[in-house]
Parts: sequence; C-alpha cells; structure tokens
Amino acid sequence: MQPVELDRLRVVLVDTRNPLNLGAAARAMSNFGFLRLRVVNPYDLAFREARSAMGAADLLASAEEYKSLAEAIADCAVVVGTTSIQHRDLLHPIRRLDEGAALIRQQLAAAPVALLFGSEKFGLSNEELSHCHWLLNIPTRDEHVSMNLGQAVAVTLYELVRENKTIDAPELPEMATAGDVERVTTSLLEALSISGYATPATIAATEEKVRRLVHRMNLSARDAELWLGMLRQILWKLRAGQNSPPQGPGKS
Amino acid sequence: MQPVELDRLRVVLVDTRNPLNLGAAARAMSNFGFLRLRVVNPYDLAFREARSAMGAADLLASAEEYKSLAEAIADCAVVVGTTSIQHRDLLHPIRRLDEGAALIRQQLAAAPVALLFGSEKFGLSNEELSHCHWLLNIPTRDEHVSMNLGQAVAVTLYELVRENKTIDAPELPEMATAGDVERVTTSLLEALSISGYATPATIAATEEKVRRLVHRMNLSARDAELWLGMLRQILWKLRAGQNSPPQGPGKS
Repeated sequence: MQPVELDRLRVVLVDTRNPLNLGAAARAMSNFGFLRLRVVNPYDLAFREARSAMGAADLLASAEEYKSLAEAIADCAVVVGTTSIQHRDLLHPIRRLDEGAALIRQQLAAAPVALLFGSEKFGLSNEELSHCHWLLNIPTRDEHVSMNLGQAVAVTLYELVRENKTIDAPELPEMATAGDVERVTTSLLEALSISGYATPATIAATEEKVRRLVHRMNLSARDAELWLGMLRQILWKLRAGQNSPPQGPGKS
Repeated sequence: MQPVELDRLRVVLVDTRNPLNLGAAARAMSNFGFLRLRVVNPYDLAFREARSAMGAADLLASAEEYKSLAEAIADCAVVVGTTSIQHRDLLHPIRRLDEGAALIRQQLAAAPVALLFGSEKFGLSNEELSHCHWLLNIPTRDEHVSMNLGQAVAVTLYELVRENKTIDAPELPEMATAGDVERVTTSLLEALSISGYATPATIAATEEKVRRLVHRMNLSARDAELWLGMLRQILWKLRAGQNSPPQGPGKS
C-alpha cells in the first residue's frame, strides 16, 4: 500500500482550554508520525510547557499559532471537522472514522488536509464548521458520545496510519520434532505409571489420552527440552521413593 | 451481525500512578461500551474522584480493586498484556493491534478476557508479563513508541469495536481460567521443588519460567483438569518418597 503522506496533514486544535490536552494531542501526533500541529486561540498561552507532551516537546515547541481558523487553514485544500454528534442537523456529510480516514488518505496524496478538533466543552462552533468540507465522527456509545480531546486525536490518527505495516507478524518459534514430543509423552507416562495414576489395566487408554494431550500443547523445540529436563528430575525422584505404599490419594 | 461480547472484557490497570489516567481510561471504556474496570495497586487511593473520568463516574465508582494481579485475573481464560516495545526479547507472541483485536473478539466469544495495561513509567514488569498468554502492540513510530496510558486504552478499545461484523470463528474449546492455570503452575512447581529441580536459590526464577511455560500451553478447561489430576497423583507419590537421598540424576 502507498504510504500515507503524513507530512501533509495539519492537525488544528481550535479554542483548546486545557494545556494538558494540547500536550496529549502532541504526544499522540508524535506516536503516529504526524508532526504538524497548528493551534488557534488556545486559552492557556503557556501551553508549550504542557508536561503531558512527554516525548513530543519539540513538536509542541514548533506548533504554529494562529489568531483565526481562516488563517490556520489557508494553505489546505481540504478541511475536515471532527464531531462527537452522529446525527447533527448539518449541511455537511458526516463520515464514520474508518471510511473518513480512507478518504483523508486519498486526499492527502493530492494536497494538504486540515483536521480540526474543537474545544473540550463545545466542540466546533457553527462558524468553525462552516469552514469544513465534511465531518468525521468516531463511533461511540449512544449513552456517552463525548470523548476526551487527547483520546479523540489519538484514535483518529491511529486510524489514519492503521494499515501501514510497521511491525512484522510475530516470528513463530521452532517447533519440537515428533521424536521430542514422543519423548515427553513417554516420560510423562512413566511418571504417571510409577505414581499409580495409570495401572497396568488402564495404561493403554492413558497412553492414548496423554499422547493427545501432549500433542495439543503444540510444543516448541525449546519448551520440549524444558519439559524433558523437568520430567527427568521428577522421574528420578519418583524412582528413588518407589518403596512407599502403592495406594493413591483420595479422589477429590 | 454478532456483537462483540463487551461485557466479558476486563480492562485491568496495574500499578497506575496518575489518577487522571485512571479517569481517562474509564472515560474511553465508557465511550466504547466496556464497563468492567479492574485496578491493581493504584498509587493514588483517591483515584475514584478523578475529574478526567467525565461521563464515566459510575464506571470508576464500580471499578474493582485488587492487591495482586493474580487475583484480578483469576476468573479470566485469556490474559493479554499490552506493550509499547515491538521487538521485545520475550517468549510471548506479540500481535499488532489490528490482528490482536480480531483474536480478542474471537476469544471473548468463548470466555472472559483480561486486557492488562502496566504503569505509566515502566509498563508491565516481567513478573506481570509472566501471567500473560500473549502481548498486544499498538504500532507507533520507532522514534516515539511510548503512548500515554489513557490514549493507549482508547485506541485499543476503539480497535476492538471498530468492525461490527461477524467473525467466522472456528469453535474454540472452553479455555481454562487463569485460576486453573495458576493451580497447574503451582502444582508443577511443587513437584519440581520436591524433586530438587528447583532449589530455594533458584525457585523464584523457576517460578517465572514455569508460569510462562504453562501459559504457552493455552490449556482448555478440560486439559487443565487433566493436568491437575496427573500432578496431584505425582505429588502424592513424591511426598510419600521424600526420605530418599537429595542429590539429582547426572546431566545427560
């Protein structure tokens, strides 16, 4: 897949009240590789010192500050607003995050896109919404639609880069050979036999049951070796104590 | 469509330092419909008043508090740890969030699943990781992998409910609970201790090794029962013979 043009996205925080949220937004941007933050009319002018920007101090320091939304988005070809309201009576199309993110990725391939987040208390105002081409909604539970600002930024940016493969599938460990698996089975059976779990009358049925059980463990080569070491020691101890009385413990 | 079994997920926050993060986690849980929060050893005992839990006060008030991780996960069949480290030198499989979430949805269809988030500063410790069946990683930029706790919770839960469609899961057998798995671990450890495989000096390291080993077996409820029966009998025999000489067999 074609990489997302991360550098073309401007995250625009409008009228943010709490500097902790500005810091948290910066941190999520840095986590997901979006480094262009714009801030319109923050309530707290000391926002650049937000301690919540852990690891994203540079990003916060280089944030561009604007007096008006119009100026902040002047160089963007597409302006997308975020809203927690799913059925807003608006003239804008509202897209669910997964579909909307796909569209933003397409639009980023052509030109800069602004992604707006409104104030914690009121979201984007009608005036601010009037600058938007369309709206994005994170699907949340009807009983509790309003997300924390920093979390909304994190979830949205995650969805934008979700399909970028950054880590490989987990490496599978080397599997035990059939011979190793059989040795584990045999050792376990011997321990069961000495301990009286299996009697001469039941040993054949037990053997089948235990062999299936050991196969279901899907042992790696390393784990098979570990089991063999443990069973060897347990067997040694069982054999050393073989003079004790033959009956087993009560069933429980 | 088959809905995700939201009610079967336990979000477990371990050693959380900052009550704001507990509140933020609760809020994201409420946004996405996961209402079962468990808290292990929070640093700030007044966490229930966190103002960042906006709209999720009830959820935070009903959070269950535990002294140990083992107790917090005892009724869960699958324990998933979250880690910011992508190539950790661990014996656990690490799954990327999108793939891992699909697996969690499958597992939730069968039994309760615990999803663990470690402390802000250190993440999950090795001991805590030893309780996990596998690990989940949110793919982030190599230069800045560490996410804010509340944001990591939000992104993870978003991914879990992102797709509202049926997954054609093969029928999974009923999985053993963490409590059963822990009993298998404890019994095996006792056998290793009596047999001299583990000495008082090595028992702590062996315990961690064995717990991981048993978790990797992915025991079904039925197999856990089978193992417990076998180990009970072996233990009985080992105890009965405990007067024999203490040295072990030769290495081979």
